[in-house]
Amino acid sequence: MDIKNDIDDICLKAKETSVSLALLKTGEKNKALLSAADSILSHKDEILEANAKDMKRAESTGMSSGLLDRLRLNEKRIEDMAAGIRKVAELPDPVGEIIESFERPNGLQISKKRVPMGVCGIIYEARPNVTADAFAICFKSGNACVLKGGSAAIDSNTAIALAIKEGLRESGIDPDALGMIENTDRESSLWLMKKKEYIDVLIPRGSASLIETVVNNSVIPVIETGTGNCHIFVDKSADLKKAVDIIVNAKTQRVGVCNACESLVIHRDILKEAVPLIYNALNEHGVEIFADDEARAVCPAMSPAGPEDWGREYLDYKISLKTVTDIEEAIKHINRYSTGHSESIITADEKNAERFLNEIDSSCVYVNASTRFTDGGEFGFGAEIGISTQKLHARGPMGLRELTSYKYIIRGKGQIRP
Amino acid sequence: MDIKNDIDDICLKAKETSVSLALLKTGEKNKALLSAADSILSHKDEILEANAKDMKRAESTGMSSGLLDRLRLNEKRIEDMAAGIRKVAELPDPVGEIIESFERPNGLQISKKRVPMGVCGIIYEARPNVTADAFAICFKSGNACVLKGGSAAIDSNTAIALAIKEGLRESGIDPDALGMIENTDRESSLWLMKKKEYIDVLIPRGSASLIETVVNNSVIPVIETGTGNCHIFVDKSADLKKAVDIIVNAKTQRVGVCNACESLVIHRDILKEAVPLIYNALNEHGVEIFADDEARAVCPAMSPAGPEDWGREYLDYKISLKTVTDIEEAIKHINRYSTGHSESIITADEKNAERFLNEIDSSCVYVNASTRFTDGGEFGFGAEIGISTQKLHARGPMGLRELTSYKYIIRGKGQIRP
Repeated sequence: MDIKNDIDDICLKAKETSVSLALLKTGEKNKALLSAADSILSHKDEILEANAKDMKRAESTGMSSGLLDRLRLNEKRIEDMAAGIRKVAELPDPVGEIIESFERPNGLQISKKRVPMGVCGIIYEARPNVTADAFAICFKSGNACVLKGGSAAIDSNTAIALAIKEGLRESGIDPDALGMIENTDRESSLWLMKKKEYIDVLIPRGSASLIETVVNNSVIPVIETGTGNCHIFVDKSADLKKAVDIIVNAKTQRVGVCNACESLVIHRDILKEAVPLIYNALNEHGVEIFADDEARAVCPAMSPAGPEDWGREYLDYKISLKTVTDIEEAIKHINRYSTGHSESIITADEKNAERFLNEIDSSCVYVNASTRFTDGGEFGFGAEIGISTQKLHARGPMGLRELTSYKYIIRGKGQIRP
Repeated sequence: MDIKNDIDDICLKAKETSVSLALLKTGEKNKALLSAADSILSHKDEILEANAKDMKRAESTGMSSGLLDRLRLNEKRIEDMAAGIRKVAELPDPVGEIIESFERPNGLQISKKRVPMGVCGIIYEARPNVTADAFAICFKSGNACVLKGGSAAIDSNTAIALAIKEGLRESGIDPDALGMIENTDRESSLWLMKKKEYIDVLIPRGSASLIETVVNNSVIPVIETGTGNCHIFVDKSADLKKAVDIIVNAKTQRVGVCNACESLVIHRDILKEAVPLIYNALNEHGVEIFADDEARAVCPAMSPAGPEDWGREYLDYKISLKTVTDIEEAIKHINRYSTGHSESIITADEKNAERFLNEIDSSCVYVNASTRFTDGGEFGFGAEIGISTQKLHARGPMGLRELTSYKYIIRGKGQIRP
């Protein structure tokens, strides 16, 4: 049996299982999640052993220390993984909600009912914890999932998936609810992206290039996640102390994440006062600022920005800085270069705040707060499968509810269309 | 300037205009719609002249009478087109609705606000009225649109678009809110499908092969519409008089539409009683039934069904008929062969009705009613851009609301992430 048959088989089984998953009661799903969490803990040794293989391979190929850290598992991280699954079990079940109901003049009773998507495909990179996270969120929202992780984490992912499947089996659930594709080559990914008859939605989690490959090749509907060139606009009326605190937080609290700030936009009228404060505060955290000539005239220690800097997602201790004449220019600049993720205005001017909220075309638009809050946990969703940067279906942090669809249920008494 | 530049230019202008469209007040949008309707009426002669060119070309290439009828415009049809636009002006504006609001423990105030998609691309075939319909629905929901109709209707479409643009201009709206692509070749379509930086959603309206081409080639998120292999299951307990009325209505009231019934599924226990009634009723309307051997034993006048009949959308005076042992087999058969559009059960058994509603995986699931009700107008949406058969974003009839997205608006007082 070749690779393509393997993939087809996993997808078909997930599709078949999804029918019964959609009908599970909340209690049955929660019991299965707890059983999966227990099984991960009781297979700790096997998972650590598998992870050691991945780590050895990664070290021998010279993986960077940052990526090695993402790949590494230890007892604590495995316990966190199990705890994450238990937490999802505690969340409210979105499936079955009657979103609205109405009666038509002809007597037809129409209800719009929340239902699972069916099968969610997730393509991700070298973070083994995504295996447990993604499974739990898909499962609680009534979906089967087909996971394809990166080659670097394949041994860890396989071991985690095996443990989860055993937990499912023990609680009477078909283990095909979790499909794990063990072939990690590009050809397998491309094949998976064509399995429209089995997979209802495909979510890539990882680098910009992974996401681009999926968008360009998938015939399955895709939810684009995660690229964030997030802006903070410091308006003329901004409280500069607040502005500096927010900028430092949004840039440095965690640099490798999509909701970190990558671009500053500063009102010309406060340039002389604001830039030195911002420079000093960011410099203390080792952040390099790429600024336009006007801002550099105020603070020549900053690096010169090239035109390519406005569109960059550094994911590093780097940030761009652009001077603007007014809020209009700020909005235009941001809408041109942002990735539609998260943008914030720091202002004391209510009118400008409203204008920014209305005219910035991003999933999350802030007034006087850090962009780092764009996160399912911070929004109170309890769990998150990613941050959508597209407008179709879901925008911003995606929790359980965003992995559902709906159907119309229509009750009649013999009505025919005149 | 070549064709690709033309398309890029139209898309870019639509994107730029979409920013101001999103901010229009309801009254301004309604005024512009009425002005567009007036302009269509005052350009009646030019539109009829253009349509005459299309008709002449179509007749000379031997277009079928059904398609010629779809292409043909006359005074009445142009008046209907204008009336359709006026009707959209009367519908409630979905934009700006606060879908939900909540406060986080850290004091952040989060609101989820309904906003337009931005730019909607519509690719359609030879029905010139789609030009006016699609524009009106997109515009009222705050979106710019880029339309690409089929070559057969290009003169009519161009004339209608010109009239609408003039109406927009007269009411002070940028006419680029409607982009009409006048190149009708395949290469232009493929190019349009890559314009992800300008177009937020692409909706194909037309034949199964058009839809497949768009799904397979678009990098823009697509909403799949319109393919309907709709089933009616006649359960053991069905009121056969009701069943026959519903079947005749769903099959023959209009045969060329996606919500017409294409497949019957009959419980074995009532085969002898039901099949002759169904045969006689459908035969009177000239419907050919393709039945399995068991049903043909009851009524040999029916044609034999081949395995390919179960999956067919005839769009004609034809229907398939399959015998099943019980509701379980009926559900399995329907979920296997349906296109996820609309299915109905005719039954007096509450339990079976509930089971059908829960387990059939289609956008609209009916009890004791005709599938022909799957329609934006029949659902009370007032207008419809299509019937979605996918689960992402929107399912079933899509009205104004289904052409919107949302964004999160977050108001803070200097909050940073700990």
